[in-house]
Amino acid sequence: MPVITVEAGKMDRNKKALLVKELTQKASEILSIPEQAFVTLIKENDMDNIGTGGRLLSDKMAK
Amino acid sequence: MPVITVEAGKMDRNKKALLVKELTQKASEILSIPEQAFVTLIKENDMDNIGTGGRLLSDKMAK
Amino acid sequence: MPVITVEAGKMDRNKKALLVKELTQKASEILSIPEQAFVTLIKENDMDNIGTGGRLLSDKMAK
Amino acid sequence: MPVITVEAGKMDRNKKALLVKELTQKASEILSIPEQAFVTLIKENDMDNIGTGGRLLSDKMAK
Amino acid sequence: MPVITVEAGKMDRNKKALLVKELTQKASEILSIPEQAFVTLIKENDMDNIGTGGRLLSDKMAK
Amino acid sequence: MPVITVEAGKMDRNKKALLVKELTQKASEILSIPEQAFVTLIKENDMDNIGTGGRLLSDKMAK
Repeated sequence: MPVITVEAGKMDRNKKALLVKELTQKASEILSIPEQAFVTLIKENDMDNIGTGGRLLSDKMAK
Repeated sequence: MPVITVEAGKMDRNKKALLVKELTQKASEILSIPEQAFVTLIKENDMDNIGTGGRLLSDKMAK
Repeated sequence: MPVITVEAGKMDRNKKALLVKELTQKASEILSIPEQAFVTLIKENDMDNIGTGGRLLSDKMAK
Repeated sequence: MPVITVEAGKMDRNKKALLVKELTQKASEILSIPEQAFVTLIKENDMDNIGTGGRLLSDKMAK
Repeated sequence: MPVITVEAGKMDRNKKALLVKELTQKASEILSIPEQAFVTLIKENDMDNIGTGGRLLSDKMAK
Repeated sequence: MPVITVEAGKMDRNKKALLVKELTQKASEILSIPEQAFVTLIKENDMDNIGTGGRLLSDKMAK
């Protein structure tokens, strides 16, 4: 029943599959909870919807 | 002011209206907080962005 | 695999059990997803950590 | 490392930039944590995916 | 109905009241949504429960 | 700037350090984003505040 949420930018399907597989495996090992119990949510955010240090990521990238 | 968030897959507008109505009603009854105070957020996730047991839901469904 | 999160104030164990049971049941019916697939997280917040309309709930309650 | 998340409706890019800038600035001042350390996530929700008082916002707006 | 969540470390009550007041005010102005409609959640996390760059904040602070 | 959140039960400090280290490392590799950019939040939930399949985890464990 642990829930892992990853807030990131856009990514291709292959990276999603890898993230879900690898993060579940690692967390399952560390917490000694079977992989079957894990739920993973991948949240893809537009560069206009993420800010760091008070600026949009889309503006930082454009520099 | 309670906030109920539902992370699920895609759904039609009718199900959204039902979820918001019924979950608010039930939670309002149980917590004795007026329905007016509730906010509900429905998060629709692509099958490629949800993992269970270390695998994408889109892969599990395809089997 | 749907995840329902309830952000609210402090509550007793009985209300938690009811929330988990009733919200899962309702959402399961509406979405046609078996109850077994649902995870529910109940987040209890102190009145000092919730704000509505720009004021702490603890201040609003005190009035 | 603080993370500020804003769940709201759709908005234009200018409002996003302002939200990220102003909320980071204010929170940085209040918490005495440098602006560089802040991450901000802006979540735009469809009117059909937000409920208040047990009703969809899209229904409330239509009235 | 916008919901602003601030994930941060421990803070005193005065800072919570300021955060709720100032972030609501700013966001209300920018989004042209009345302050009354805003919910704010302040999440205080232990230094052992926050990581940056792959290390616990409690370890970084100790250096 | 990616944010990884792990919702789980109580755990000791060593497991937290491992989770933060290993999940950041894996996600950094997969997404090709430097580890420095990652924030991780570990949320420890009481067994009375987690539900699966409509029942509190504390009740399931007691069986």
